[in-house]
Amino acid sequence: MISERMKDLVAGSSAIRAMFEEGKRLSAIYGEENVFDFSLGNPNVEPPKRVKESIIEILSEESPNLIHGYMNNSGYDDVRETIAEFNSKKYNVQLSEKNIVMTCGAAGGLNIIFKSLMNVGDEVLVFAPFFGEYRAYTNNYDGVLKVVAPNKETFEPDLKEFEEKITAKTKIVIINSPNNPTGVVYSSETLTKIAEILNRKSVEFNTSIYLISDEPYREIAYDGIEIPYILKYYKNSFVGYSYSKSLSLPGERIGYIVANSEMDDFDTIMKALNVANRVLGFVNAPSLFQRVVARNLDSEVDVEVYKKNRDVLYNHLVSLGFSCVKPQGAFYLFPKSLIEDDKAFCDAAKEFNLLLVPGSAFGCPGYFRIAYCVSFEKIEKSLEAFTKLADKFKK
Amino acid sequence: MISERMKDLVAGSSAIRAMFEEGKRLSAIYGEENVFDFSLGNPNVEPPKRVKESIIEILSEESPNLIHGYMNNSGYDDVRETIAEFNSKKYNVQLSEKNIVMTCGAAGGLNIIFKSLMNVGDEVLVFAPFFGEYRAYTNNYDGVLKVVAPNKETFEPDLKEFEEKITAKTKIVIINSPNNPTGVVYSSETLTKIAEILNRKSVEFNTSIYLISDEPYREIAYDGIEIPYILKYYKNSFVGYSYSKSLSLPGERIGYIVANSEMDDFDTIMKALNVANRVLGFVNAPSLFQRVVARNLDSEVDVEVYKKNRDVLYNHLVSLGFSCVKPQGAFYLFPKSLIEDDKAFCDAAKEFNLLLVPGSAFGCPGYFRIAYCVSFEKIEKSLEAFTKLADKFKK
Repeated sequence: MISERMKDLVAGSSAIRAMFEEGKRLSAIYGEENVFDFSLGNPNVEPPKRVKESIIEILSEESPNLIHGYMNNSGYDDVRETIAEFNSKKYNVQLSEKNIVMTCGAAGGLNIIFKSLMNVGDEVLVFAPFFGEYRAYTNNYDGVLKVVAPNKETFEPDLKEFEEKITAKTKIVIINSPNNPTGVVYSSETLTKIAEILNRKSVEFNTSIYLISDEPYREIAYDGIEIPYILKYYKNSFVGYSYSKSLSLPGERIGYIVANSEMDDFDTIMKALNVANRVLGFVNAPSLFQRVVARNLDSEVDVEVYKKNRDVLYNHLVSLGFSCVKPQGAFYLFPKSLIEDDKAFCDAAKEFNLLLVPGSAFGCPGYFRIAYCVSFEKIEKSLEAFTKLADKFKK
Repeated sequence: MISERMKDLVAGSSAIRAMFEEGKRLSAIYGEENVFDFSLGNPNVEPPKRVKESIIEILSEESPNLIHGYMNNSGYDDVRETIAEFNSKKYNVQLSEKNIVMTCGAAGGLNIIFKSLMNVGDEVLVFAPFFGEYRAYTNNYDGVLKVVAPNKETFEPDLKEFEEKITAKTKIVIINSPNNPTGVVYSSETLTKIAEILNRKSVEFNTSIYLISDEPYREIAYDGIEIPYILKYYKNSFVGYSYSKSLSLPGERIGYIVANSEMDDFDTIMKALNVANRVLGFVNAPSLFQRVVARNLDSEVDVEVYKKNRDVLYNHLVSLGFSCVKPQGAFYLFPKSLIEDDKAFCDAAKEFNLLLVPGSAFGCPGYFRIAYCVSFEKIEKSLEAFTKLADKFKK
């Protein structure tokens, strides 16, 4: 009885569910501490202490009907103004509350942008490997997802293929940097080139092509690398931000969109985002956590914990002969599978209690993803399992 | 540049926005205390004290990564089990966590049901007057909204017209009791008849027709009236529940769906709801507030505050000659406009600083809605304005 459009999604979701069940099954046999579940991007690092403090402050300082009540569908004006000021200073841009819509995480943000912009058949361009949900979001609005293959040496986008795949129907391009699943950060040079291509193609087709930078991992970056701010590169740009990883609050569904004031049709688009938040049923981003994040703009999770995991696991995998780009951000590794069939490889890994996600799930077969947002103890214990896995496929 | 589908929605939303701006304009001239904004269903009664206490308890008792982390897209198992047990006892039904999906308010709940069930062109039947968002939700999934006219003496549904309007394409029927905007509660007799009609038509067309009872106002009921529980009347039934009004937490976006175990295709539908929560971008209901509501199942806002408002305002309006059904629940009055054109009537009301919503917004022209979830002081001060409004149209 479920809708035709849901049938494939439900079937696909059974695979994730099966992984989860497999984890539970293995834990029951071997003990939870001996099962290495690297399948989920659920942060293990605690939220900053300031988060809890600020919740308690808000509850004692502000009136309950303000804290928990309805507000403008785009979010509290004062919260949006605070975030705008913070970002204006941090990135040297000019933002006000007019540029900001508070959203139910980055997922909510992407959906309201898609709802606002997309007509049936419009194309969304993504760079492989990409977060699989982009496909579902595109389908929600009857769009067509087109995938640009990566340069597999660097996992930077193949800009030649990118330019070739842009058509008169291209409405949205998504970049995700630091990237899930590769951990790659796009350089200023790459963003400049992407902007040049989009400007050229917009003129050629006489269209507006909107670029969304999906940035849940912006604050999870290593070795002092700088992550360029898309608004400085391209006028038709949005940032989709989330506090899921930066404050370890993924369950709270809190984030925001920044829209570039220079974009085509800015005023109408901001109205549309406001309405889309309402009609899609989000109504508004959760109210208490809007006020919480406004008091935590300077708070940070301890990124060193992730970095230590990255370093130990990356070095071990390389020593085993795995080919892998060293991540500059996020909390994922994306090594090459030791056999062509990444699904068979991940199946084989279960023998060693390793739960890994095939690259196919990210539009990039032949690779696999390790989510290393787990305890360091777990990382250390898993090393032997990876060794055994490598041995199994040694020629 | 916005999508075709959004253009009407943005235009329509400008009317609401205009009302809001009018309120601000009048407040600036006459003072906020002299402007009677009855346009919004934003509860003025404070959340129960237990809500704040339980937030602080949770923060001190549970681990931050549990409180704020990802969980099953359907919600925490323990929270769902607690809600299932509570409802099983309260309504004498058999529920477990398998029947429950935690949602971002009732709006999120309705959207994930629609996404799960609706194919292009499927029909959604609603009873006028109805919450205008049902139309937007139906359009989100390319459905067709069909409206059943009310009996205007009682604002109970016209069941003859209801039966006539059911076709082989009817997938979903929505009831909303206590009703926004009339405050009417559907009787056990009415639900029995609705179920009979749906059973008869399902057999006739060999279809499954799903009935959703949208119940954000269940706990806002007066004079000891009992609100029947839909699961006891019809097998293909859902309850869409929200804590927005029952705990005065509308900004927190927290509610749940209950699905009847007896419904056609129950297992697949529950999987689909889980997936729909994810792919629509909700991902999950806000995590802290899932845990908060589980500790507040017995908590109640002070309904007497609303009742006092209802009684004073209802009696005054009736004394002025307005025709109006006495609300048994919710916090709205829906009187007959003194002239046929309800929009013109609401425009005229602004002269007396009264902000009212035309019945047309609820599919029922010739009437208007008063949201009396405002301070009692405001109600008292508004009486004279209503008197002047009635005088203006006295023949």
